Amino acid sequence: MSFFPPSLENLIDKFAALPGIGKKSAQRLAFYVLSLPESEAQSFAAAILEAKSSVHCCPVCQNLTDGEICSVCEDSRRDKGIICVVAEPRDVLSFERSREYKGVYHVLHGVMSPMNHIGPDDLKISELISRVAGGEVLEVIMATNPDTEGDTTAMYISRLIKPFNVKVSRLAYGIPVGSNLEYADEATLTRALEGRREM
Amino acid sequence: MSFFPPSLENLIDKFAALPGIGKKSAQRLAFYVLSLPESEAQSFAAAILEAKSSVHCCPVCQNLTDGEICSVCEDSRRDKGIICVVAEPRDVLSFERSREYKGVYHVLHGVMSPMNHIGPDDLKISELISRVAGGEVLEVIMATNPDTEGDTTAMYISRLIKPFNVKVSRLAYGIPVGSNLEYADEATLTRALEGRREM
Repeated sequence: MSFFPPSLENLIDKFAALPGIGKKSAQRLAFYVLSLPESEAQSFAAAILEAKSSVHCCPVCQNLTDGEICSVCEDSRRDKGIICVVAEPRDVLSFERSREYKGVYHVLHGVMSPMNHIGPDDLKISELISRVAGGEVLEVIMATNPDTEGDTTAMYISRLIKPFNVKVSRLAYGIPVGSNLEYADEATLTRALEGRREM
Repeated sequence: MSFFPPSLENLIDKFAALPGIGKKSAQRLAFYVLSLPESEAQSFAAAILEAKSSVHCCPVCQNLTDGEICSVCEDSRRDKGIICVVAEPRDVLSFERSREYKGVYHVLHGVMSPMNHIGPDDLKISELISRVAGGEVLEVIMATNPDTEGDTTAMYISRLIKPFNVKVSRLAYGIPVGSNLEYADEATLTRALEGRREM
């Protein structure tokens, strides 16, 4: 049942198509946009077009950038010999926030997922192999999520990289800093025991 | 700390300014928009501009419309003698869904809220009074939400309307249909008792 004017229904549908936004939330967002001053609604629309047209993948690491190459690849202080492989651009942000990592990245733009028909060819894996084949790389850190799909993807890529005699590592599994043993699940505790280190 | 390209940061900020959308959700939405095909991103932006430019308030009832007057006010079968006063355009949808109400509406576009500096002059109250003063109206149903602000607004407006010798009513308070007495709060139960009717 459509009661709102067609152009408002259309805007509600656009919002409802966004991930995690239901019909009710979409209505609320659309009403909010209508309540904005003309100039702000225009700058919202312009922001979508501007981001869509100017943001593209860095030709080296496939992270999102609006420059020729991304700020990390451009930075001469970053160690080009270590590549941290992540699934999504937002994962790069998580590492950058820790301010500890000094290497570069490679963004896969997803993980292998047979359920969703995402295979190796849908990810930026061949680009990673080309970088490794270039010869400059000493270590590849697999930093996909510690779930079935992330593990499978990491395993698949590590097999492709092995022939190049490059060290392949995986992020450590274990108890998160500041958490409580009481709430740690069995799988995490098992991995934390396996990965224990001498003090 | 800004790590994303400026145009992407800008889009994230736009999404984060929407009600109920936090920074993380805004990032997810912005990434989703970037992953859309060019044409869909453009039609999203166009939907915002189109809705903003074509949708305006009905000059009679102040509901949102893209026509000269809204579909309810235009409908000759609707009883122009009864006005249901609601706070928001979405409340009209709720009544229309019940398919029971045959009168017309008046949308206030908010409720009086001293905390948020919203007074009577910020609402479409003078427009309502003009309609009532027109002489055609027999009854005004106050259908603002049953909370402090909604009640205050209803009370304020009913005092303004009284001098015109027009019947002013308020939606019934009581137990929602299909709910459980166990979960009804005291205030609702008290109102349900007060408003009891002979069977």
